[in-house]
Amino acid sequence: MLERYGHGGDLRTASEVFGRSAESFDDFSSNMNPLGPPPSIRNVLAGYLEHIHAYPDPASRALKKTLANRHGIPENAILVGNGAAEIIDLAVRAIRPGITALAMPCFDEYGDAVRKLGGEIYPIPLDAAKAFELGEAEIGAAIERSGADLYMLGSPNNPTGRLVDSGLIYRLLDSGAYVVLDEAFLSFVPDEGKVTLVQAAVQHERFIVIRSMTKFYSVPGIRLGYAVGKPSTISRLRKLQVPWSVNSLAQQIGEAALMDAEFEARSRQWLVTERKWLTDELRRMDMQVTPSEANYLLLRLPESSRLRLSASQLQLEMGRRGVLIRDASRFQGLDHRYIRVAIKLREQNERLLLALSECLGAAKDGSGDSA
Amino acid sequence: MLERYGHGGDLRTASEVFGRSAESFDDFSSNMNPLGPPPSIRNVLAGYLEHIHAYPDPASRALKKTLANRHGIPENAILVGNGAAEIIDLAVRAIRPGITALAMPCFDEYGDAVRKLGGEIYPIPLDAAKAFELGEAEIGAAIERSGADLYMLGSPNNPTGRLVDSGLIYRLLDSGAYVVLDEAFLSFVPDEGKVTLVQAAVQHERFIVIRSMTKFYSVPGIRLGYAVGKPSTISRLRKLQVPWSVNSLAQQIGEAALMDAEFEARSRQWLVTERKWLTDELRRMDMQVTPSEANYLLLRLPESSRLRLSASQLQLEMGRRGVLIRDASRFQGLDHRYIRVAIKLREQNERLLLALSECLGAAKDGSGDSA
Repeated sequence: MLERYGHGGDLRTASEVFGRSAESFDDFSSNMNPLGPPPSIRNVLAGYLEHIHAYPDPASRALKKTLANRHGIPENAILVGNGAAEIIDLAVRAIRPGITALAMPCFDEYGDAVRKLGGEIYPIPLDAAKAFELGEAEIGAAIERSGADLYMLGSPNNPTGRLVDSGLIYRLLDSGAYVVLDEAFLSFVPDEGKVTLVQAAVQHERFIVIRSMTKFYSVPGIRLGYAVGKPSTISRLRKLQVPWSVNSLAQQIGEAALMDAEFEARSRQWLVTERKWLTDELRRMDMQVTPSEANYLLLRLPESSRLRLSASQLQLEMGRRGVLIRDASRFQGLDHRYIRVAIKLREQNERLLLALSECLGAAKDGSGDSA
Repeated sequence: MLERYGHGGDLRTASEVFGRSAESFDDFSSNMNPLGPPPSIRNVLAGYLEHIHAYPDPASRALKKTLANRHGIPENAILVGNGAAEIIDLAVRAIRPGITALAMPCFDEYGDAVRKLGGEIYPIPLDAAKAFELGEAEIGAAIERSGADLYMLGSPNNPTGRLVDSGLIYRLLDSGAYVVLDEAFLSFVPDEGKVTLVQAAVQHERFIVIRSMTKFYSVPGIRLGYAVGKPSTISRLRKLQVPWSVNSLAQQIGEAALMDAEFEARSRQWLVTERKWLTDELRRMDMQVTPSEANYLLLRLPESSRLRLSASQLQLEMGRRGVLIRDASRFQGLDHRYIRVAIKLREQNERLLLALSECLGAAKDGSGDSA
């Protein structure tokens, strides 16, 4: 069980479990852009010793200005946070929802942040047969029956990689509920500028969009995310935020990364090509692959290995081979045969496929060791 | 008004107000060790590009181990946080006090964290005539009259630099209240190992000690602090903490810094010498200097300039000369003639004295411009 702390990417736990160095793994359990970090970050790090002795700007003013320009929104519609995780926490604490509707499966942190405050969860089950799409039917039923005062949705959703249709968001807002839309992985989508709802969020009292910078720029070590909303809403979140919550290195890296248009274009191009290739290869292995707009794929293990290997057993088998995957059966709404893998560079993806075929082949042959 | 965000060390605001680059100031408004950061941090920064692409250890395991060894306490008695500011916030949210007693003047964040939750503040006024010492009389009266379920105290207290007697802490605990003791500046005290109450905190259900690593090691840009308490108490704080709250660079820097015994010894030695020298020089200028155990001094401006210059006016005069000081009249319990200055290296301290004497001399001569 590598998700000791509830998430993927925990190399320290993996290192303890498998007795290998943290650096030696191919980590498909955390969804980082394998092209990152962008080269500009090298310079920021090289110069950071000259800045570490000073407090961070408590208001992240320079970064907010860059973000405001990028999105065409006012600076006071933005709150920079210590990773998207902090923004999720602040949003829930500012809204204090009684009942929160979540489309399952989804990112654990939504439910965790709600339960921490004693809030109730209303699950909206997504249908595997419809490739986990959130549709009119699900939303209509939830508005009618849930009594939810908050909807927290990911777009692309994690772990499914599916986008949420903007029309559905407006329907939810019209119902009088709050909507928190997590666009943590939206930077990977080629026409992000058209798909993002940050500009809509600036207009709606009860609408908050969450963005992460750590996935696309591959800097999760340093933590960086932000919220976009109406200035009055953003101000409520800010009042709950701890002073100097965003360290100064994260602020500088954010600024530098956003300037790097070449990195952005190259990353999106890579993903379109590689996602198609990896999806095809996995399907060739009889995996059920959910069509994804993001840099990760939700897979169901092939029926042929049905009797032999669960996701958690496969995770152990793969870990022994130095390949980390996410046991997606831990997401509410998925059974014990789901895994999630990040899309990485071709050479790494080939190692993933090889390890998978070894593990599944062995299981099929009846020689799978699931101790 | 440089404390736009409630604190000192805001170089960005200073730069906007005075039209000078942030780097050009002598910053006596934030209390950093001028000998820091320790040289070992250079290596950590140089190697960090190899680590930034991975999530931080969500449990800060390596750093907790180092801290546990240092203090002789168990690892599960420690929670590492995104600066002491996060720990203060978590402690207050875990305790949810009705009435919190604060010895005034004290660090703003105590009251801010309490008010954020709708809690009430009971002020324990510290007496300037007794050099702001927290004594038996104040504590006895507070236990009898305050009805406080939480006492938050700084030792050394900020901005006074005075230590809290451990006997008083035990009296408060015996009264049935929670005690949160902020030892953010205790690393500067030569016999820290004897004075700290971290070991006592491990034993008491209602006692939390807060430590900061950013002041002594001069790394406020990156945020690093921790809490010590009974494992059951620490576990309550951890449940409220946002995942990956502590970035991986801070964790690595913390480990490296704690190994540097030479830096520690040299810093404490410097402070004893320099504090005495600066105190004497300031008294020679007729400043009222509160005797301090920390790396900062609380000063009251001399009576001779009584009619001319308030702390906020002096702050502007000094800022124009490139020297930032803290307008301490903003601390509850201090009048408009208090300032706080960090103790820095001799050359910088001489510039402080020169600028002060120019401003006060000009004020005395009646030529002070306080626009």
